[in-house]
Amino acid sequence: MKFSIKKSKFIEALNVVSRAIAPIPVFDILKGIKIEIFNNYIILKASDSLISIEYVIDKYIDDKEMFSTDSEGEIVVPSKYFIDIIKKAPTEYIEFDANSNSIKISSGNSEFNIQGYEVNEYPDFPIISKENKFTISANLFNNIIKETIFCTAQNDQRPILEGVNLELFNSILTATATDSHRLSKRKISLENINTEQTFNMIIPRKALQSVQKIIENRENDIDIYYEDNRIVFVYENITYIILLISGKYPNTDKLIPNIKVCEVEVSGNILFEAVDRVSLISRDDKNDIVKLSINSDTINIFSQSKELGNAEEEIYANIKNDEDLFEIAVSAKFLKEAIHAINSETIIIKFSGELTAFTIEPSDYHRDIVQVLLPVRTY
Amino acid sequence: MKFSIKKSKFIEALNVVSRAIAPIPVFDILKGIKIEIFNNYIILKASDSLISIEYVIDKYIDDKEMFSTDSEGEIVVPSKYFIDIIKKAPTEYIEFDANSNSIKISSGNSEFNIQGYEVNEYPDFPIISKENKFTISANLFNNIIKETIFCTAQNDQRPILEGVNLELFNSILTATATDSHRLSKRKISLENINTEQTFNMIIPRKALQSVQKIIENRENDIDIYYEDNRIVFVYENITYIILLISGKYPNTDKLIPNIKVCEVEVSGNILFEAVDRVSLISRDDKNDIVKLSINSDTINIFSQSKELGNAEEEIYANIKNDEDLFEIAVSAKFLKEAIHAINSETIIIKFSGELTAFTIEPSDYHRDIVQVLLPVRTY
Repeated sequence: MKFSIKKSKFIEALNVVSRAIAPIPVFDILKGIKIEIFNNYIILKASDSLISIEYVIDKYIDDKEMFSTDSEGEIVVPSKYFIDIIKKAPTEYIEFDANSNSIKISSGNSEFNIQGYEVNEYPDFPIISKENKFTISANLFNNIIKETIFCTAQNDQRPILEGVNLELFNSILTATATDSHRLSKRKISLENINTEQTFNMIIPRKALQSVQKIIENRENDIDIYYEDNRIVFVYENITYIILLISGKYPNTDKLIPNIKVCEVEVSGNILFEAVDRVSLISRDDKNDIVKLSINSDTINIFSQSKELGNAEEEIYANIKNDEDLFEIAVSAKFLKEAIHAINSETIIIKFSGELTAFTIEPSDYHRDIVQVLLPVRTY
Repeated sequence: MKFSIKKSKFIEALNVVSRAIAPIPVFDILKGIKIEIFNNYIILKASDSLISIEYVIDKYIDDKEMFSTDSEGEIVVPSKYFIDIIKKAPTEYIEFDANSNSIKISSGNSEFNIQGYEVNEYPDFPIISKENKFTISANLFNNIIKETIFCTAQNDQRPILEGVNLELFNSILTATATDSHRLSKRKISLENINTEQTFNMIIPRKALQSVQKIIENRENDIDIYYEDNRIVFVYENITYIILLISGKYPNTDKLIPNIKVCEVEVSGNILFEAVDRVSLISRDDKNDIVKLSINSDTINIFSQSKELGNAEEEIYANIKNDEDLFEIAVSAKFLKEAIHAINSETIIIKFSGELTAFTIEPSDYHRDIVQVLLPVRTY
């Protein structure tokens, strides 16, 4: 196999696929990146066996030649060294000459002779069924991930909680994540979709984080294909193949309270900043707790630590309170993350009781999103 | 003690002095920052007992009032939390009201009540003798540190090698560092100095790194006071008091070879880049070695690793060689760092033998600096 490739494009492709490579891969061969040349394409592949990424380099981009080939073939290069060698190459185009798994890399006066992996040992990527598909803008899908992923459980005994639940029913796509202390649920209406189409799957957090890096600040559409145990994201020339978490996601609708004893309308930003400040005093405690005392037109935020002292701050809010004084204690971190996800100038907090879950929503309901938090017992 | 202070100035001062605070201080009280108010000054102090930093805040800067005081006094605040509380304060000026070691911090609607440390327990800073002094521009002194500090030994059995040796003799200031595999020596002529003034001291690496952060990209002069066991740097309103490493620094002049069998004049940048690339192949080996083969008008740089393969690159150079072929093996990291420190378009390398030390100097000798490297035995 012999080819010459434009350095900048090659680095871009290597950076994308190398995200799939695990720090300590299960199999040695998965330390490698597979490079396939056939017809007018160069295809790069990498995988940690749960996430597999493929990047197709077109021969011409904007009429510029990205590569030229003397002969087709396949090689598997050691990712760790290879990417640095390419990054430091002194010329615009880099030449490769591979004879079975012995690879020569030339750039100007520099020449590397490195050992590749045995191509036949590299696992085949699955063939993607194109039967079930929907399309969503990269920007919108990135938001859905951001708005839910932080609520996934970390190191939970139930692996299903370590992913985001994605459900399609009646043309409504619902993303849900919960660590059993809090929950985030975001719904959007999909257009141009067969109303008969339904699915319910759990996508691993790590895979979504990897996808996020590609689609952040991008505008084009993502094609999403799904099968029983796999979801495939295709964005432009990049394909992500992801193994789903198997299991049945719990019914989370019953976790959202529908009674209300106190309702607060407040600036999301002002509440966030006040909680952020007051909780400085308790952030090193195991439970980083702030106490909210809701009066007729103010919220008092209070926190204390035995070692350090206490802090409090009062902010104005629009309050409908059935009682004279409503008090609740909550994790400052969770409260801040929920306000951040709501991302609305004004937020509505609905309390159902001092020891029961409460909800946070955007005041103008411009997005169908709800955050549910459980208060903390302080006595 | 009661005062109000401009947030931005206070943060600046806190950031400077907090650099002295050790991650795990020997004494609990050294987790604190001492704040003294008297006359028209606020003075901040912090120390890890080897490095002590003092920052004086003037009452007026450019006619703007930095602080106002209701009553004078001293407090010791817990640095870790205190700086974050100040950074997140919502108002331009922050108010303090301290009653013995109970401290109230107010900013807008937010109020913190924190415990300070016992002021009497805070160690006194030494009184600085102003007897012996010299002055040097911050920029030049920063360069001298940069050009030598990387050669100090890491975790050596001899603590004296973990500092930079600073010597004054005949109005020449010499900075030297060596880890016994390589050496950097930089000399400058001091003006306006009493030719009788001499000293020879070893300044701990960590202290110099801390000083560097303050004087980087600064142009004013530093006043340097020295005593038997201490050196004091005064830059504007910041004072660094540093305990010296005790002991006698070895005579390093005899380590600089004065015979020469091969002399190479080469672009510093081209050699650096070539070594950087070729050594990619060996960087994970214990000895990250490149082999230089010096011919009549080229240098061939070669490296190999059993696991990975090999790399080589040829570059042009102006060579005076007593032999047909001169070969030497050297640590790529040390060679790159030496070229970097020389910081000259063209460098002169003088070899004294294949197994003896060689030197690198700037070709125009515009700065009196020399790097000495020991080759590595490869058989």
